[in-house]
Amino acid sequence: MTDLKTIAERIGGTLDGDGTLPIDGVNTPERASEREIAFLAPERPLPKPCRAAALVLKRGSPLAHPSRILVDEPHEAFARLLALFHPRSPAPPGVHPTAVVGAGVTLGEGVSIGPLTVLGDGVVIGAGSEIHGGVHLYPGVRIGAHCLIYARVVVREQCSLGDRVIVQPGAIIGGDGFGFAHRRDGSPVKIPQVGRVVIGDDCEIGAGTCVDRATLGETVLADGVKLDNLVQIGHNVRIGRYTAISAQSGISGSTVIGERVIMGGQVGVADHLNLADGVMVAAKSGISGSIKSAMVVAGTPHMEMSRWRRNYATLRNLDEMRRRLAELEKKFASLEETR
Amino acid sequence: MTDLKTIAERIGGTLDGDGTLPIDGVNTPERASEREIAFLAPERPLPKPCRAAALVLKRGSPLAHPSRILVDEPHEAFARLLALFHPRSPAPPGVHPTAVVGAGVTLGEGVSIGPLTVLGDGVVIGAGSEIHGGVHLYPGVRIGAHCLIYARVVVREQCSLGDRVIVQPGAIIGGDGFGFAHRRDGSPVKIPQVGRVVIGDDCEIGAGTCVDRATLGETVLADGVKLDNLVQIGHNVRIGRYTAISAQSGISGSTVIGERVIMGGQVGVADHLNLADGVMVAAKSGISGSIKSAMVVAGTPHMEMSRWRRNYATLRNLDEMRRRLAELEKKFASLEETR
Amino acid sequence: MTDLKTIAERIGGTLDGDGTLPIDGVNTPERASEREIAFLAPERPLPKPCRAAALVLKRGSPLAHPSRILVDEPHEAFARLLALFHPRSPAPPGVHPTAVVGAGVTLGEGVSIGPLTVLGDGVVIGAGSEIHGGVHLYPGVRIGAHCLIYARVVVREQCSLGDRVIVQPGAIIGGDGFGFAHRRDGSPVKIPQVGRVVIGDDCEIGAGTCVDRATLGETVLADGVKLDNLVQIGHNVRIGRYTAISAQSGISGSTVIGERVIMGGQVGVADHLNLADGVMVAAKSGISGSIKSAMVVAGTPHMEMSRWRRNYATLRNLDEMRRRLAELEKKFASLEETR
Repeated sequence: MTDLKTIAERIGGTLDGDGTLPIDGVNTPERASEREIAFLAPERPLPKPCRAAALVLKRGSPLAHPSRILVDEPHEAFARLLALFHPRSPAPPGVHPTAVVGAGVTLGEGVSIGPLTVLGDGVVIGAGSEIHGGVHLYPGVRIGAHCLIYARVVVREQCSLGDRVIVQPGAIIGGDGFGFAHRRDGSPVKIPQVGRVVIGDDCEIGAGTCVDRATLGETVLADGVKLDNLVQIGHNVRIGRYTAISAQSGISGSTVIGERVIMGGQVGVADHLNLADGVMVAAKSGISGSIKSAMVVAGTPHMEMSRWRRNYATLRNLDEMRRRLAELEKKFASLEETR
Repeated sequence: MTDLKTIAERIGGTLDGDGTLPIDGVNTPERASEREIAFLAPERPLPKPCRAAALVLKRGSPLAHPSRILVDEPHEAFARLLALFHPRSPAPPGVHPTAVVGAGVTLGEGVSIGPLTVLGDGVVIGAGSEIHGGVHLYPGVRIGAHCLIYARVVVREQCSLGDRVIVQPGAIIGGDGFGFAHRRDGSPVKIPQVGRVVIGDDCEIGAGTCVDRATLGETVLADGVKLDNLVQIGHNVRIGRYTAISAQSGISGSTVIGERVIMGGQVGVADHLNLADGVMVAAKSGISGSIKSAMVVAGTPHMEMSRWRRNYATLRNLDEMRRRLAELEKKFASLEETR
Repeated sequence: MTDLKTIAERIGGTLDGDGTLPIDGVNTPERASEREIAFLAPERPLPKPCRAAALVLKRGSPLAHPSRILVDEPHEAFARLLALFHPRSPAPPGVHPTAVVGAGVTLGEGVSIGPLTVLGDGVVIGAGSEIHGGVHLYPGVRIGAHCLIYARVVVREQCSLGDRVIVQPGAIIGGDGFGFAHRRDGSPVKIPQVGRVVIGDDCEIGAGTCVDRATLGETVLADGVKLDNLVQIGHNVRIGRYTAISAQSGISGSTVIGERVIMGGQVGVADHLNLADGVMVAAKSGISGSIKSAMVVAGTPHMEMSRWRRNYATLRNLDEMRRRLAELEKKFASLEETR
C-alpha cells in the first residue's frame, strides 16, 4: 500500500488531486476499485462508471476525474506503474539439483538455473541471469547478464545472447536454416548450416518464435529488437536496433531489416531484401521488394499505405465496376452503330 | 470385437441390415475391410470398391449398402464410433519419481504426473487429470478435473484451466503479451504483463499454440473454445463459448470474439475489435474492423463473403478490364475528335 | 587445413589456379580471408573487395579470380564444401543416466539418448540415431537409423520416422488433428484422432513445426520431404517425395500434395484438395482449389503466376481506373444529352 503522492513521484508525473489517497494496486479503468489507480491510453474514452481512485493521463488530457496524475509519456508511466505494484520476484540463485551441467560451464554471480535444465559443455551465463526449468542450452552458448530465459527454451550450439534479454517459453534460437541443393532428379541435399545467431542487449524473443542460425556467419538481432510470438527469422537475416515484429510474421533468408522498423502481425518478407530504417509494415502484408526509405506500406504485393487504402476501397466495388464498364462498352457500340 | 446391432445401439442409430455381423474395427470407406465399419460424411461419395462390412450414414442418405446404420447427427455418431473402438488408455495415477514438485502443491484423486514434469509452488490439479512428461507448470497454476495436458506444455504463473481441458504438446499458456512503450529515441520499454489467462471447461488448445497473459486482468477463453495448432492469442483477448479457430490464426490484443464464431486458418484479427456471435471468417482473411452481426466474411480487408467472391472473380480479369477501359477511352477520344 | 587441389577433388570440381594454396576454412565472399575459400551462387555478383583465397563457381562463370574451382552443380558443391570444413561431431553413444526409458524399448547400435529424454514403452530406435536432450517419444514410436532428433521434440504414440530423418528443436509430430462434431446448441464434440503419422526416409522437419496424426489411418510424408519452421500439416494430409514447404505454411486436412512441389512461406492450402507433382506456389498464396498440372501459382484465390503478376500490377492503379471509368461515364452521358 502506498499513497497517490508517492506514486506520482515514482512515475515522474504531476499530481492533480489528494496526495494522501491510499492506493492498493493498479487496474484497468473498467475494473479498478476505489483503492486502485488506473491508466488510460490517450486515445481511449473514460468508461462509465469508473470507480478508480485516480487516473494516470497524458498531460493536457481533457478528462475530468477527482484525482489525476499527469505525465508526458503515458505508456512509459504505465510501465513504471505496473512495475511498482508488481515487482518480479527473482528466482533463487543456484543450480537446481536436477539440472544437468556440462563440462567447463561458467556461471556469473547470482545466476539461477531451474529444474531439469541442460547446460551443454562450455556454456557461459552472465551475472544475475535466470534460466528457468526445462531449458536446453547446447554447447558453447553464451547468455549475457540479467537475462530471463523462460521454461523449455532451446538455444543451439555457439549462439550468443546479450545482456537483459528475455526469451519467452518455447522459443528456439539457432535451429538450422532451410537450405537445400537439388539433384537432377529433384531430390534435396542438405546444405549444412554452420553459422550461428547473435542477439544483442535488451532484446525480447516471443513464445514459440524461431530464429535460425546462419548458413555461414551470423543471423543478427541488434540491441532492443523485440519479436512477438511464433515469429520466424530465416538464416543470415540481420535486424536493426529497436525494431519490433508482431506475431506470426516471417523474414526470409539474408534479408536486412533496418532500425526502428515496426511490423504488424502475419507479415511476410521475401529473401535477400533491404528494408530501410523506420519502415512501417501493416499486418498481413507481403513484402517482395526492397524498401529504400522510411514509409508505411501495406498489401501483397506491398504499396504505399494511402495508395493501398484507395485501391482496396475500390476493390470492394470491383464487380460493380466491371458491370459499369461492360454497360459503357455496350452503349458505345450501339452509339457507333446508330451513327 | 462386437456386432453391428451393438454398435447401432451405442452410437444411437437405426440398423438397416444384419445385426449379427461381426465388426472388428472402424476405418475409412477406402480402407475398411469386410470386418470393419466405415463412416461416410454426408457430402462425400461412396468410393468404389468399398469393402466395408457396414456404413454409418446420415438418415435419409440415398447411398445403398448391404448394411447401414442411419443416424441423425453423423459427425457426432462418428466421434462415438471412434471412441468405442479406440478407448484412450489413461495414464497410471501417481507422481513419477522424476517429477519436480514444489511446496504446497494440491493433487486431486487419481491425478497422474508424468516423468520430468515440474509443478511450481502452490499448483492445484483437479481429480483425474493427466499431466504428461516434461510439462512445466509455474507457481500458482490451477488445472481443473479430468484434464489432459500433453508433453512439453508450459503454463505460466497464476493461469487457470477449467475441467476436461485438453492441451496438445508444446502449447504455451500465459507468456507475456507484446507490449512496449517507446522512448523518444525509439528504444522500447517493456510494459510488465501482470495479468493472467483463464480458460474455461471443455476447451482444447492446439500444439504449439500461444495464449498470452493479460497486461492487467485476464485473457479469457470461455467454455468449449477450440484452438487449432500454432494459433496466437494476444493479451486481454476474450473469446466466447464454443468458438473454434483454425491453425496459424492470430487474434491481436484486447479483441473480443463472440460465441460460436468459426475461423478458418491463417486468419488475422486486429486489436481492440469486436466480432459478434456466430461470425464466420474464411481462411487467410484479415479483419481490420469490428463485425456487428453474424455474417460470413472473407478477404483483407474483409467483406461479406458473396461480395468477396464476386470482386475476386472479377480481379482474375482485372488486367483485361484495364485494357478494355483504355480502348474505350481511345475510341471515345477519336469519336470526339471526329464530331 | 588443406590445400585447394584437395578441395577441388573432394567437391568434384575443376581447379583453375594454384592447387598448393593453403585453405583453412570456408566463408562468405564478403567475409572470407586470404586463407578461406568462398562460394558464390550463380546469380550473385562478386563483392568488392573480395579477399577470398579462392572461389567456387558454376562452370562457365565469367567471374575472374586468381583461384577458382568450377563445378557443374554449385549448390551441391557448396553443401559438400561446408560438410568438409564443418563435420558434425556426433553425440556419444549410450543412454544418459537422466533419461527415462520405458519397458520394451529397442535401441540399435551406437544410438545416443540425451539427458532428460523420455522414451515410452515399446519405442524402437534404429542404429546410429541421435536423440538429444528433453525429447519426448510416446509409446510405440519408431525412429529409423541415423536420425537426428534435436532437443524438446515430441513424437506422439505410434508415429513412425524413416532413416536419416532430421527433426529440428521443438517440432511436434502426431498431435491430434482438429476435428469436432457440433451439437445443435453449437457445442463441439471431439472426434477422437486415432490414426498416426508416417514419415519417410531423408525428411527434415523444422523447428516448432506441427504434423498432426490422422483421424483414422495415416498422415504421410514421403521420402525426402522438407518442412521449414512453424509449418502446420493437418490430419490425413499426404505429401509426395522431395516436396519442400517453407516456413509458416499450412496444409489443411486430407489434402494430397504431389512430388517435388515447392511452396513459399505463409502459404495456406484448403482441405481435401489435390496438388499435382511439380506445382510451385508463391509465398503467401491461398490455395482453395485443386491444381491438376505442374504450374506456378500465386495469390488468394490463386491464379497462374503470370496472370497474377498482370492483375496485381493493375491493382496498383485500381483507384485511378475507377476515376477514369467515372469520367468516361460522365463524358458519355453528356455526349448523349447533346445529341
